[in-house]
Amino acid sequence: MLDKINNQTDIKKLNIDELNELSKEIKAFILESVSKTGGHLASNLGVTDLTVALFKVFDFNKDKIIFDVGHQSYAYKILTGRKNEFNTLRKLNGISGFPKIEESKYDFFNTGHSSNSISAALGYAISRDLNHEKYNVIALIGDGSMTGGEAFEGLNNLGHLNTTMLVILNDNGESISSSVGGLAKKLNNIRINQKYINFKKDLKKKYKSKTIFTLRKIKNHIKNIIIPNKMFESFGVKYIGPINGHNIAELVSTLNKIKKIDGPVLLHVITEKGNGYEFATKYPNLYHGVSSFNINEKIQKNTNDFSNYVGHELSELRSNNDRIVAITAAMKDGVGLNEFATKYPKSFFDVGICEEHAVSFAAGLALNKYKPFVCIYSTFLERAYDQILIDVCMQKLNVIFLIDRAGLVGEDGETHQGIFDLSYLTHMPNIEIIAPKCVEDIKLCLNYALNASNPVAIRYPKGFYSSKEYALKTLKTGKWSIIQKGKKIAILATGKMFEIAINLINEFKDIEIIDATFIKPLDYETLDRLASKNYKIITLEDNQIIGGFGSLVLLYLNKIGYKEKIEIIGYNDTFIKQGKISELYNKENITYENLKEIILKLKNVI
Amino acid sequence: MLDKINNQTDIKKLNIDELNELSKEIKAFILESVSKTGGHLASNLGVTDLTVALFKVFDFNKDKIIFDVGHQSYAYKILTGRKNEFNTLRKLNGISGFPKIEESKYDFFNTGHSSNSISAALGYAISRDLNHEKYNVIALIGDGSMTGGEAFEGLNNLGHLNTTMLVILNDNGESISSSVGGLAKKLNNIRINQKYINFKKDLKKKYKSKTIFTLRKIKNHIKNIIIPNKMFESFGVKYIGPINGHNIAELVSTLNKIKKIDGPVLLHVITEKGNGYEFATKYPNLYHGVSSFNINEKIQKNTNDFSNYVGHELSELRSNNDRIVAITAAMKDGVGLNEFATKYPKSFFDVGICEEHAVSFAAGLALNKYKPFVCIYSTFLERAYDQILIDVCMQKLNVIFLIDRAGLVGEDGETHQGIFDLSYLTHMPNIEIIAPKCVEDIKLCLNYALNASNPVAIRYPKGFYSSKEYALKTLKTGKWSIIQKGKKIAILATGKMFEIAINLINEFKDIEIIDATFIKPLDYETLDRLASKNYKIITLEDNQIIGGFGSLVLLYLNKIGYKEKIEIIGYNDTFIKQGKISELYNKENITYENLKEIILKLKNVI
Repeated sequence: MLDKINNQTDIKKLNIDELNELSKEIKAFILESVSKTGGHLASNLGVTDLTVALFKVFDFNKDKIIFDVGHQSYAYKILTGRKNEFNTLRKLNGISGFPKIEESKYDFFNTGHSSNSISAALGYAISRDLNHEKYNVIALIGDGSMTGGEAFEGLNNLGHLNTTMLVILNDNGESISSSVGGLAKKLNNIRINQKYINFKKDLKKKYKSKTIFTLRKIKNHIKNIIIPNKMFESFGVKYIGPINGHNIAELVSTLNKIKKIDGPVLLHVITEKGNGYEFATKYPNLYHGVSSFNINEKIQKNTNDFSNYVGHELSELRSNNDRIVAITAAMKDGVGLNEFATKYPKSFFDVGICEEHAVSFAAGLALNKYKPFVCIYSTFLERAYDQILIDVCMQKLNVIFLIDRAGLVGEDGETHQGIFDLSYLTHMPNIEIIAPKCVEDIKLCLNYALNASNPVAIRYPKGFYSSKEYALKTLKTGKWSIIQKGKKIAILATGKMFEIAINLINEFKDIEIIDATFIKPLDYETLDRLASKNYKIITLEDNQIIGGFGSLVLLYLNKIGYKEKIEIIGYNDTFIKQGKISELYNKENITYENLKEIILKLKNVI
Repeated sequence: MLDKINNQTDIKKLNIDELNELSKEIKAFILESVSKTGGHLASNLGVTDLTVALFKVFDFNKDKIIFDVGHQSYAYKILTGRKNEFNTLRKLNGISGFPKIEESKYDFFNTGHSSNSISAALGYAISRDLNHEKYNVIALIGDGSMTGGEAFEGLNNLGHLNTTMLVILNDNGESISSSVGGLAKKLNNIRINQKYINFKKDLKKKYKSKTIFTLRKIKNHIKNIIIPNKMFESFGVKYIGPINGHNIAELVSTLNKIKKIDGPVLLHVITEKGNGYEFATKYPNLYHGVSSFNINEKIQKNTNDFSNYVGHELSELRSNNDRIVAITAAMKDGVGLNEFATKYPKSFFDVGICEEHAVSFAAGLALNKYKPFVCIYSTFLERAYDQILIDVCMQKLNVIFLIDRAGLVGEDGETHQGIFDLSYLTHMPNIEIIAPKCVEDIKLCLNYALNASNPVAIRYPKGFYSSKEYALKTLKTGKWSIIQKGKKIAILATGKMFEIAINLINEFKDIEIIDATFIKPLDYETLDRLASKNYKIITLEDNQIIGGFGSLVLLYLNKIGYKEKIEIIGYNDTFIKQGKISELYNKENITYENLKEIILKLKNVI
């Protein structure tokens, strides 16, 4: 069936049985393909039926759809002519795991971060109105993304502007149960209507073959699904649902009716993450984002990485200090906080995809004598820029930011690379910034931050690096670790860049190699010494050059009248697309070879 | 009465009549005091009755209160021992117009930006619980602030964590009518309960002496007040209200009842902005933030400033291009968009205090071939850092940011100084940043931005500066304007700093004076020329040095091997407190005298 689909018109010709068959084939294709390339699995399987139904009803040659986050757009990509490129998914120069306007005329917004789809779609809808055109605009948003403040801002403005637009709430229950708890607390007085009861029966029938675990999850979930209409209607958006996101007939019929409604509509669709692949429905978090895997075996989670070391060390620290609390924004697994959450549930807070709230909440805790560790990926912490600056740094609070996935993350591409955090943090007064180079350094860094009296950001990369030999012995404010004393040339490498710099140790015995753990404040004493002896200086960082580590070094050296050129290695005012991290370092010339070349040139002029 | 209040216990002894009298005296005191010092007036008069009631019921020696934004904390300051310092309000070294933890042990959070009070208060409440303590925690938030996404994030997490905390929604109707329109659209099927009807009668009685205008406003407003309970209860927060925020007896009785309730409560209080002073109730926006004024006359709004020039020129531009839309975040007056909004209501969007949504919405409009101008103050645009970077810059969209109040703003103090925008923008790929020095330059800047194909930020200061003599004739990408050709020393002044640099022209005929309109990209050709002739270079900016204009200049000059020290004048990694702008420049050494001194020193070494 799938092979016969050449365009959207072909899909429209199919009847419901054929659509069901098509959807099954797409799910099989996604499973097969992602098992080889890696990618987002459970979220994509969950919306395949819905996507097929959308193609039956809408025409994306004129209609627009914006996928919130975008990690549920694979079926859409397959049905808009990109099936044959799926073997290049998330690879260097291949197709992206997220919608990309530069990849296809059917992609309307480059997403990757959460909760902005309603806002962006509203931009499309309003410009359509201003232009006196007629077509449909759809925002497809998960219940997780719906917890983000911007989604409410968008919804509220949508109700106010009262234009025709469809918001599809793709509710797979994961986030509502774990985060949007507030929505689930006031259920006692709810009147259950017939439609809802029918739906419940329908779900039970559908899932009768499932394990008790799954069934219970669905049952609990059902309790939640009637409540949100009150909320959404308060915003002035017509609420329709909930409907079963795996019943294509019902989806098509409902979507056809909605097409005739003027004004904003929210359609609440219940889906199952991982639908069609049992491992993924049983373990939706495990199968959220995956590397290549064997379809017939359960994935074993790799826990040997910076995230899990950080999470473990934070648990250890907590065992001696009950003032420590950990806060994350819907990424408990990702940031390695499972152990902490299990051991200290009352001190653990997953606030949903709410980075802004996470940071202001932490500020309140810190002012009331607690020690909040805020664990968020570098790229998502961007959302809390203002709260870090105003609520935390301005009040000089001892909030500790555990910035995971700092530097390149690889296959997720430009929306996810953590290459801006130094630039958005270095100019904040009162903050200290440190970067452990290896998992052995983490403990000292956490301890240091706990005992500080001001904001501390600890940034560390995706992946794993161990170095017992060069691990920090102590960590003092603004002190670097001299790995190898040298003459005339010094390499200042921060965080992960140590992995490149350390290669010099065998080849260049006369080069000073410095592990610049402290990014702010810098080690002024060491810089004074290097400057006074006219060392040539090279800085390395996994971040934008503008506003980054090398820029700080340059500012200081300029201030003290150092006259030599400084070689600053980092990203040159550019976004970095997808690919393996090693491939991207090559592309950006952040390599040992380049470093060596620079050194040899410098040696010639000394 | 007010003079007899020495502590909170004194207030508790008063009966309702005495509390009413006290409140009247406080309002009179605020009016008298603010008419001399300037400050926030209407919002403070609006919550005085409520504040007095809070002191009757709560004890802020143990209870905590967080004022959202904080421009309604004057009565609270007066009643916590700061009455005698009110003549120093907002002055250099005086008391702040906002809560400040360093000013009083009764201030619990430094606010200034909006919508974070629930989050911060939740931090207090949860740490209280973890510490097994008992006291009340209150967030007092206006209906305007309630539109911000972070407020919803906080509310949702509050419902989820289900702790005892009081959110007081101070609803003065301004924002609900103008922004939270979505909330007001679905009123047809609302059952009106007896309490509500009584309240309506009560309000009518209270306001019978008011003008028709005021009464109509209140009537329209009444239609809105029953709806939100559905929404708030959806979040798991118990909704109580609405009650009359000027009836102290009712406030005290309700607050006493709420004190006994476990779990999160939202109390909806209806207040009148400017209550007790007729000019302020009639013109609440005009009397929101004021300079010193005559109590017996209506204020005349100063419209001779950058904001109004920008607004006017944008209107002019719109008259020839119907693709132009203007977006602001609840600051139509402040950013000078009244004219535009009146002439082109369909192209004007005030989205509420929703900076994140504003930017993603603009991105959608730009992708659908419209020309969005997003007009937000420098300090508040921080809230949309991620959306500017990911939604706009990464997609290289021609969204134009009109960044008002860039640089120092003076009396509002450190939460409002616009001294970070260059630092948070310069490292964003694809963006261009320009800074007009005088109102005459605005037209060219807007025209340039309109015809660009990428994001453009235009930053301009608070206040007014006209310079027909040196106004730009043309504006080309990365081109500076040479005001005076010179030898050996060059001053690169950006934006408002021109006002300092231009003073050199009479005294130093041999100094090159450059109006560096373009901050990104820099004028590389000019820099190459200066470097090749070994000019000494001084940069001036109204921004943090780290990540700012001088840093960009330094990075480039380092790259091309320039060997001289560069004098970078800007803010030295610090927050800037309140005071007159001129006083603050003096304090930070951003003065003509300092510039002259640097030049004389440089002349000595040439």
